[in-house]
Amino acid sequence: MKLSKDMNILIVGLGLLGGSYAEGLKKQGFKVSAITKEESSVDFALEKGIIDYGTVKIEPELIANADLTVFALYPHIFIEWIKENQQYFKSGAVITDVTGVKGCIVGKIQSILREDVEFIAAHPMAGREVCGVENSTSEIFKGANYIVVPTEKNTPDAIELCRDLGEKLGFYQVAELSVEMHDRMIGFLSQLTHCIAVSLMCCNSTPDLEKYTGDSFRDLTRIARINDEMWSELFLDNKNVLLAEMERFRSSFDELYEKINTGDREGMREMMRLSTSRRKLFDKIL
Amino acid sequence: MKLSKDMNILIVGLGLLGGSYAEGLKKQGFKVSAITKEESSVDFALEKGIIDYGTVKIEPELIANADLTVFALYPHIFIEWIKENQQYFKSGAVITDVTGVKGCIVGKIQSILREDVEFIAAHPMAGREVCGVENSTSEIFKGANYIVVPTEKNTPDAIELCRDLGEKLGFYQVAELSVEMHDRMIGFLSQLTHCIAVSLMCCNSTPDLEKYTGDSFRDLTRIARINDEMWSELFLDNKNVLLAEMERFRSSFDELYEKINTGDREGMREMMRLSTSRRKLFDKIL
Repeated sequence: MKLSKDMNILIVGLGLLGGSYAEGLKKQGFKVSAITKEESSVDFALEKGIIDYGTVKIEPELIANADLTVFALYPHIFIEWIKENQQYFKSGAVITDVTGVKGCIVGKIQSILREDVEFIAAHPMAGREVCGVENSTSEIFKGANYIVVPTEKNTPDAIELCRDLGEKLGFYQVAELSVEMHDRMIGFLSQLTHCIAVSLMCCNSTPDLEKYTGDSFRDLTRIARINDEMWSELFLDNKNVLLAEMERFRSSFDELYEKINTGDREGMREMMRLSTSRRKLFDKIL
Repeated sequence: MKLSKDMNILIVGLGLLGGSYAEGLKKQGFKVSAITKEESSVDFALEKGIIDYGTVKIEPELIANADLTVFALYPHIFIEWIKENQQYFKSGAVITDVTGVKGCIVGKIQSILREDVEFIAAHPMAGREVCGVENSTSEIFKGANYIVVPTEKNTPDAIELCRDLGEKLGFYQVAELSVEMHDRMIGFLSQLTHCIAVSLMCCNSTPDLEKYTGDSFRDLTRIARINDEMWSELFLDNKNVLLAEMERFRSSFDELYEKINTGDREGMREMMRLSTSRRKLFDKIL
């Protein structure tokens, strides 16, 4: 099953990601509606032409009309929303999400969801250091990865639909991971990096550092501008994995510290050569 | 004293930075010559029109003709070069450099240099994750900082000339720091960040990570493609400062680890809010 133009797509949560999904889908000619918290987000999205219709109320008909609903909410709000409003879905509806951690959400949603509605989880690996629909743009999907996270409860049809959504949104690469592998991957690639950036930004209070900085520090701390409400939730939702990844990083960092401390130049160079060869694989293709 | 078009500028070392200096200066209409190691670098630079003359030999007349000489060499080679060739400078010549660490070089050069030649140290806070004159471009100076590092041996004239060089090359901001402050600043802003990037890239050997990554990991590891010969030298040249900065970062990282471990959500959010407010000052103005 692929996305088709006669499908009704509903976005729940018009933030940075929800808005970027809306924009990308509208640009491709899809019908997009939205339910969100703030009236101002609806106004902005309507004015910018990235949704056809928007509301801040739970409108049963709107929900019942949706063939595909995308949830772009904080994990705990997503669960609450499903509990309270799932009776309005039409039979056969598919729902997906953008949540950054899967272990805490996928099993839970799938276990409470009606039998005739299917939840297929996905994680768009794209974002910005600013939030809100005002900053949304589907440009962030260019060159980016999109991960579909199926379980044994998912049908091939819904998986295909979800993959197709990633492709239509313009992601560079669509991949599939299990819930467990997803959370391990994200604990390392995304959460650990945010921990490092925040720690780096917090550890030095010298004034005027920005006058002397180069791009290295800028790059390492771009994500230190962080939505503290969302990320603290995501960290705790993936706590055990994240702590293990932090330990892993720390022992590599300590190893380098020891090599510098003992003047082991060849050992340092060996680590640098390994990092150089590994990093080559990560260049973004735009 | 400012740079003037009738001055002869000599670049020693046509790598990424030497080449970018040459390009920026030629574009502004200055006369630029170069001495470098490889014939192919000279050929490339001549063909690209970023130098007027280049050689791989020590040509006494060329050195004697230079009003300003820029050294873009590894620290230990810079010192050797001065020992062997300083007799060729003309009286009143000014020399400067691009070296990333100052404590190990500035005092040494100033103490061995002839009395009638002045060395004023500078550090352009710009670079790329690739090296060589083939990758040089003065575009890297846009929005970047340039630090002049004077000592009590320097004259106002030479300091002004060195600042003017940074301005003419198109740096966004020209600042001044003492040798000690420079090395502390660089230990934190530049060397520590490279240590983090290398450690992060080394700590996980899971295959296919690039298929699942987002920009956070890409940004934190851009500089993990690193010139191991140069950086191992720079790290050891600033060893004590760097180790102290690594310890500082580690305690901040450990603090965050503890907050996650104990589920101290408010403590995590506090660190995130601090990092967010601090990071805002670092946006690059292009």
